[in-house]
Amino acid sequence: MPKSTRPEPAWEGMGTPVKRTSRDIRTANRYEVLRQIIAESPTSRQELAAATGLSLATVATLVGELLELRMITEVGFEDSAGGRPRGLVAVNSSGGALIGVDIAETYVHVELFDLGLNVLARAEEDVRAGESLPEQVVGHVAAAVGSVVTQAGIEGARVLGVGVSVPGQVDRATGTSEYAPNWDWHDVPLLNLLTEHIAYPLYLDNPLRASAVAELWFGAARGRGDAVVVNLGTGVGAGLVLGGGLHRGVSNSAGEWGHTTMVLDGRLCRCGNHGCVETYVGARGIMLNLREIGPDSALLHPDDQTATIDALARGLAADDPVARRAVHETARYLGAGVADLVNLFNPEIVVLSSWVARTLGEPLLHEVREAVARHALPRPLAATEIVLSPIPTDPVCLGAATFALEGALQTAGQRNGKRTTLARSTTPARSRTTASPS
Amino acid sequence: MPKSTRPEPAWEGMGTPVKRTSRDIRTANRYEVLRQIIAESPTSRQELAAATGLSLATVATLVGELLELRMITEVGFEDSAGGRPRGLVAVNSSGGALIGVDIAETYVHVELFDLGLNVLARAEEDVRAGESLPEQVVGHVAAAVGSVVTQAGIEGARVLGVGVSVPGQVDRATGTSEYAPNWDWHDVPLLNLLTEHIAYPLYLDNPLRASAVAELWFGAARGRGDAVVVNLGTGVGAGLVLGGGLHRGVSNSAGEWGHTTMVLDGRLCRCGNHGCVETYVGARGIMLNLREIGPDSALLHPDDQTATIDALARGLAADDPVARRAVHETARYLGAGVADLVNLFNPEIVVLSSWVARTLGEPLLHEVREAVARHALPRPLAATEIVLSPIPTDPVCLGAATFALEGALQTAGQRNGKRTTLARSTTPARSRTTASPS
Repeated sequence: MPKSTRPEPAWEGMGTPVKRTSRDIRTANRYEVLRQIIAESPTSRQELAAATGLSLATVATLVGELLELRMITEVGFEDSAGGRPRGLVAVNSSGGALIGVDIAETYVHVELFDLGLNVLARAEEDVRAGESLPEQVVGHVAAAVGSVVTQAGIEGARVLGVGVSVPGQVDRATGTSEYAPNWDWHDVPLLNLLTEHIAYPLYLDNPLRASAVAELWFGAARGRGDAVVVNLGTGVGAGLVLGGGLHRGVSNSAGEWGHTTMVLDGRLCRCGNHGCVETYVGARGIMLNLREIGPDSALLHPDDQTATIDALARGLAADDPVARRAVHETARYLGAGVADLVNLFNPEIVVLSSWVARTLGEPLLHEVREAVARHALPRPLAATEIVLSPIPTDPVCLGAATFALEGALQTAGQRNGKRTTLARSTTPARSRTTASPS
Repeated sequence: MPKSTRPEPAWEGMGTPVKRTSRDIRTANRYEVLRQIIAESPTSRQELAAATGLSLATVATLVGELLELRMITEVGFEDSAGGRPRGLVAVNSSGGALIGVDIAETYVHVELFDLGLNVLARAEEDVRAGESLPEQVVGHVAAAVGSVVTQAGIEGARVLGVGVSVPGQVDRATGTSEYAPNWDWHDVPLLNLLTEHIAYPLYLDNPLRASAVAELWFGAARGRGDAVVVNLGTGVGAGLVLGGGLHRGVSNSAGEWGHTTMVLDGRLCRCGNHGCVETYVGARGIMLNLREIGPDSALLHPDDQTATIDALARGLAADDPVARRAVHETARYLGAGVADLVNLFNPEIVVLSSWVARTLGEPLLHEVREAVARHALPRPLAATEIVLSPIPTDPVCLGAATFALEGALQTAGQRNGKRTTLARSTTPARSRTTASPS
């Protein structure tokens, strides 16, 4: 029974206190300084203060902490005009490795990164249509994680953590896949299953939030207060960066834009509803748009989303009229849906991410911008940029690895005896496993 | 030309820094402590620490500041079991007066409050259909503000400020009504016009944000991290409380839920688009729903929204089948739209506010809860309560007066020589006029 059937609270005295502490700020600022160092190494404390807006004293303290954690190193001095030489710091790339796992409906991508978030190794496994058991998917993940560690030739002890993204609704505190519509998973204890094969600290979340964190740390949302990262793949959603941090909602399920209603009583969605955004702009929805326009089109590969979207992209490049109309129609839906996000959130930037956006690229972006301009209100429209994700690799792998980086920062802080309250952090307190490295 | 047509930023080095400081936290905590004292006076520092989750030392400092501002007073001691007697504080109700102005499409409501936010006087002016000039509306506001000050019999010098809510898109920094669709206002310098008649500090914003702030300080969102306040009137919108504070967006225009698309290519909206939520659940939309069900119904008062909604409420009470079907149909639309908000924000609570929600009350709430349960995803649905606003007076007046209260807290802080950075505050730095009290 949903809580919504509970009686209303009384006029006074209800609710739980929302505690914000200086430690929350400190954690956010520590992330911000590390982000900036990763983006521009080597750099000085003075440059960091200018780039982040923090005071030099605060930056100096945070840099000291990151040095102590061996995440960055001192790399010499630069002359300052007439003043004392300024100490330079840089990411300590070899200080550890991070692994990002992108479990999607049709594949498992795994990438291993150094601390500068450069890719050192990659592995990919296909997930075939029949493979819907959690154990089958976990097997692919374990094989690919083993492969990247071997390829990179690093010691297991240097792997600081593995971030895992799985589609659908995730309880990150318990490491459970609560609902994954593609495989009809309900309450699968995915983190426990993975722990049997993977002996590194594990962090579970979903592609929406992984993409959003990737843009926040390394992409188009870096330094932005309010950004929306629109994920266009088989599933569709909107990762929310609000007030400079990831907005998770009260039970880590915010951002389900793919399951908002755009056409009341419209197409049936796999969530059971009708007219959801996903049924018009997800990969399957785009296939339906194409089928309505050209039922016999050679672009259509029934039962193969990737082949169809690839064919559409080639058709656009060749000025195929059916491809153009299918993308125009998709952009009409997408423009209305993105305009909804612009009107609701009034963000600085909307980033189009994931494989469908990457494959259809600039032609899709151009049409979407025109459609959004027709739908959005003038004031929020004027304040919003719409861009393709500038991240050249898989943003979900990158974001998942970033969850592991945040987790390592947090557990290191705890080991230092600094107990932190991280209500607004993007990292769970519980999901660090106690396994020893293999 | 919208910014969305600008080229994308490069991979690195873009964006402006998001600066968060301890002062932001301090301001938020000062609001939180004052909120709690207003809700429960008298109270002790120990009770405040327990209720807010702040440390006793922090509470003691903040209470000291509020005492210095004469917003609260010491009112004696209570025994603590075996320990030292605890000092009690209470709101200093007579420490000043606040005025809230609710400019709506059909009326101007004005209320004068003491510092405990108790209503001391009210005035109302009708805005007739022909009165669409800014000067006419300003005249009504000036008359009603004069009336409440006279009625309350207080000295002008004790009025700390006047919060003014006007429908549509507002630039609060310049005090401009950028766009008010009902009167087709564009870039009306409303604050300047009001300053010619009203000699108190003025704060301009819109009903979405006023309602949200009223719920945050005094209603169902108090102490909640994430809440959505759904405003159902002639216009429709969603005030957003995220991370314990008001989410304004990058240009103070977040929350335009009324202008998100629910039925692509559906009813024409006054914003120029088709199928907006407002055209199905705003007062005019409900009239259309009623007309579709019972074109000759006696419930329908063409050209009179208030009379029609009142008639619908009486029809519900009398079990009139046309009224029941019209409200059922309205709740079907509203349920889909509220489910979108639940899926996107994953809030703790959704509050139905404004005059349409108040008039249709429990029967509407009941139907909406059932419709939301059909549309929302299980995980966010399970975490969300849906309630009617518990605020017994006009929430927009109360919220507008709260903007004036926040402004008074802020300007007092500045007079004390504490220059504050209020990036996440709900109060503009600029809109305090320098007029002397009348």
